[in-house]
Amino acid sequence: MALNGEIKETSVSFDNFKEYENQIVTIKGYVHRIREMTGFAFILIRTSKEIIQCVYAPEFSDYRLEEGLTEESCVKVTGKVVSSQDAKGNLRYELQIHDIKVLSKPAELLPIVINKKQLDNIQLSTVLDLRPVSMRNPKERAIFKIQEGIARGFREFLSLNGFTEIRSPKINFAGAEGGTNVFKLDYFGKQVYLAQSPQLYKQALVGVYERVFEIAPVFRAEHHDTSRHLNEYTSMDFEMGFIESFEDIMNMETGALKYIMALLKKDYAKEIEILHADIPEINEIPVIKFMDAKELLMKKFKYKPSDMKDFDPQEEELLGKYAKKELNSDFLFVTHYPSKKRPFYTMDDPADPEYTLSFDLLFRGLEITSGGQRIHDYNAQVEKMVKCGMDPEQFETYLMLHKYGAPPHGGLGIGLERLTMHLLGFKNVREATMFPRDINRVTP
Amino acid sequence: MALNGEIKETSVSFDNFKEYENQIVTIKGYVHRIREMTGFAFILIRTSKEIIQCVYAPEFSDYRLEEGLTEESCVKVTGKVVSSQDAKGNLRYELQIHDIKVLSKPAELLPIVINKKQLDNIQLSTVLDLRPVSMRNPKERAIFKIQEGIARGFREFLSLNGFTEIRSPKINFAGAEGGTNVFKLDYFGKQVYLAQSPQLYKQALVGVYERVFEIAPVFRAEHHDTSRHLNEYTSMDFEMGFIESFEDIMNMETGALKYIMALLKKDYAKEIEILHADIPEINEIPVIKFMDAKELLMKKFKYKPSDMKDFDPQEEELLGKYAKKELNSDFLFVTHYPSKKRPFYTMDDPADPEYTLSFDLLFRGLEITSGGQRIHDYNAQVEKMVKCGMDPEQFETYLMLHKYGAPPHGGLGIGLERLTMHLLGFKNVREATMFPRDINRVTP
Repeated sequence: MALNGEIKETSVSFDNFKEYENQIVTIKGYVHRIREMTGFAFILIRTSKEIIQCVYAPEFSDYRLEEGLTEESCVKVTGKVVSSQDAKGNLRYELQIHDIKVLSKPAELLPIVINKKQLDNIQLSTVLDLRPVSMRNPKERAIFKIQEGIARGFREFLSLNGFTEIRSPKINFAGAEGGTNVFKLDYFGKQVYLAQSPQLYKQALVGVYERVFEIAPVFRAEHHDTSRHLNEYTSMDFEMGFIESFEDIMNMETGALKYIMALLKKDYAKEIEILHADIPEINEIPVIKFMDAKELLMKKFKYKPSDMKDFDPQEEELLGKYAKKELNSDFLFVTHYPSKKRPFYTMDDPADPEYTLSFDLLFRGLEITSGGQRIHDYNAQVEKMVKCGMDPEQFETYLMLHKYGAPPHGGLGIGLERLTMHLLGFKNVREATMFPRDINRVTP
Repeated sequence: MALNGEIKETSVSFDNFKEYENQIVTIKGYVHRIREMTGFAFILIRTSKEIIQCVYAPEFSDYRLEEGLTEESCVKVTGKVVSSQDAKGNLRYELQIHDIKVLSKPAELLPIVINKKQLDNIQLSTVLDLRPVSMRNPKERAIFKIQEGIARGFREFLSLNGFTEIRSPKINFAGAEGGTNVFKLDYFGKQVYLAQSPQLYKQALVGVYERVFEIAPVFRAEHHDTSRHLNEYTSMDFEMGFIESFEDIMNMETGALKYIMALLKKDYAKEIEILHADIPEINEIPVIKFMDAKELLMKKFKYKPSDMKDFDPQEEELLGKYAKKELNSDFLFVTHYPSKKRPFYTMDDPADPEYTLSFDLLFRGLEITSGGQRIHDYNAQVEKMVKCGMDPEQFETYLMLHKYGAPPHGGLGIGLERLTMHLLGFKNVREATMFPRDINRVTP
């Protein structure tokens, strides 16, 4: 015997039902819902993509429904594609069931109702406890197709623009990062850490591939228990070398976001409809300097900032409203954050070293990206480390890039789950995370 | 100010030098090598993709080389594209340097020579210690472009065949898996584990998307210190539902491998050339049953197996030779492994329950994949767990799939680094791993 890798499948779906009208086809899927009527029944089949309405009636079905078909059984349904007009005169297609072959049956009834349009009146914690089941709901399922689309768009756009995909290690040694809040791990007697970000690695690889990206999990041992923090999430990172200015990075992100939104509209239209998602139009993304934004908040919104070095969530929200109303944009870049609030590798603005060549991107009033230009000169980086109270000798590996030559470069990171959450209008990032990990949850 | 995301770049490379003949262009990159000749110099510029030969001479260059250009400086070079004939009469293009703008200089000389075709006489441990630098060598760099291509091919092929990309958590709870050799982690006072595989999650999601895949890190706390084991590696996993038989899985893998090899030949030809890589031709992949393979080894190769339940590396090698010589194939599927040696979720062969509906794929005599059909019936899975000495109550989450209905399904996992290693003819998997983690190494 031998296998030739040819995939022989006829894919029948709503998209092409018309082509199959009056023909006999076979579909496979879960029995999503059975609605018994007088003398016939609607059987909704949930395929990998959608719900297909099938009609059962003793006069044209060989299968006997009274044998006890149950919801969440897996079946193959053979039948004829027929069309009919609905009340408004629109053509709709359904499958007249000729036969059903039951492939498997569930051992128990579902603990929650999943075959409505959405999960009604079920607490988020229950939804998350039962993810392997709750995900079967069409709306839940659509969320993570959208998430797939966002990551896919990010990757496709960067690949088209000369970026190389990298895979940095998640088990890190002490000097890989300067951050706190790291998970510690016993590694054959050594203490090691889970990666907080691919920062060291993506910078090092700018010296190799010039432009690199990674979409991978990162781990933060933060004790926060908020609606927007996770202890494990997916970071979409890129880093690019030979930049002319840090605006090159923001421009690349603008291009990526445009591409992602266009891709979602093109290939994920069904999911957008199910989720009533409001996909933003992006023409250009306006830019405001941090201190100008602070002034705007104080003058225009009469807001009294509690911290002149950073924004609180309410300030971000106000800036989002301003961008939407005054600049007709769902997005707003805020640049030149104070040096004290940015990481040790951030390049200070030569024109005013109290501020940095860095930025955050706000999307509808929520920060979804941090990025900026990095220090590429060895002596400048060592000096900055010392100023930050760090010991450069502990960062020997990190500094290899700088010591042996680095181009001007910078990059950014986007939290995939957070972007998904905000794009879909959710209030809690867990709704946009398949299997969230937080201070209280490591299951399922 | 605002950014519109339009990326304005003219990409000049060897591929299109001809189009730019006699035109002035600008390239950017590292000074890879300076070869001073009498009255002129060759300056090789390493761009993100390749080495471009540039010629410096005082009569046409404004830049003054005596100012002290050093290797590994980052530069922008402006010059004219000119052609000349080499000794064999072939046209070759180079850049006549008009000017060089130095963007950055290294602080120190490189600790190793990276500007030869390959890293000569440098121990692997040194190569790995100096990854941020050694990767700048064209051959090292090519290895991980090939690796990118393999992962990209896997993803593209599966996406084309209706698979959904998933992201399963790497922080796992106790009942996520049945394996040993897991890394333990203190998670806010709870003991948790690093994911050994996405097994639980990919099976659960077969109930949602029917076909899913993931390319992500996995962690194994194995004490092995061998040339083919890593403690963190990239697993390319897929799982597919509604299969007719476990051969559907092998057929999908065959298709994926064909696609990957074709993609490498198409888009990674330069890297294949640099690495002298022998990319296999795949028409079809032959299949042999485990016990038939054992018999073959004993009869044809007069080999005395030490273990009738599994293969040792030498047996795999002999089977590889057999497949190549007798069946003209670099690949060989071995099926129906003994039940005792496969995981608890493997489906036994109904025709002979001592054996399983599982397979390994050997590539040139090395196992690169394990896969098979999974048990989908709840009672059958519980029974098997008990038989394996496991407590089903600890696997409540895992069993949700089975309890609430699962289609016949199966899947596989491929170690990306191991496949890269063997494709490129390396003897040590660390050569095909950017930043390997093993029992002795967690840096850089």
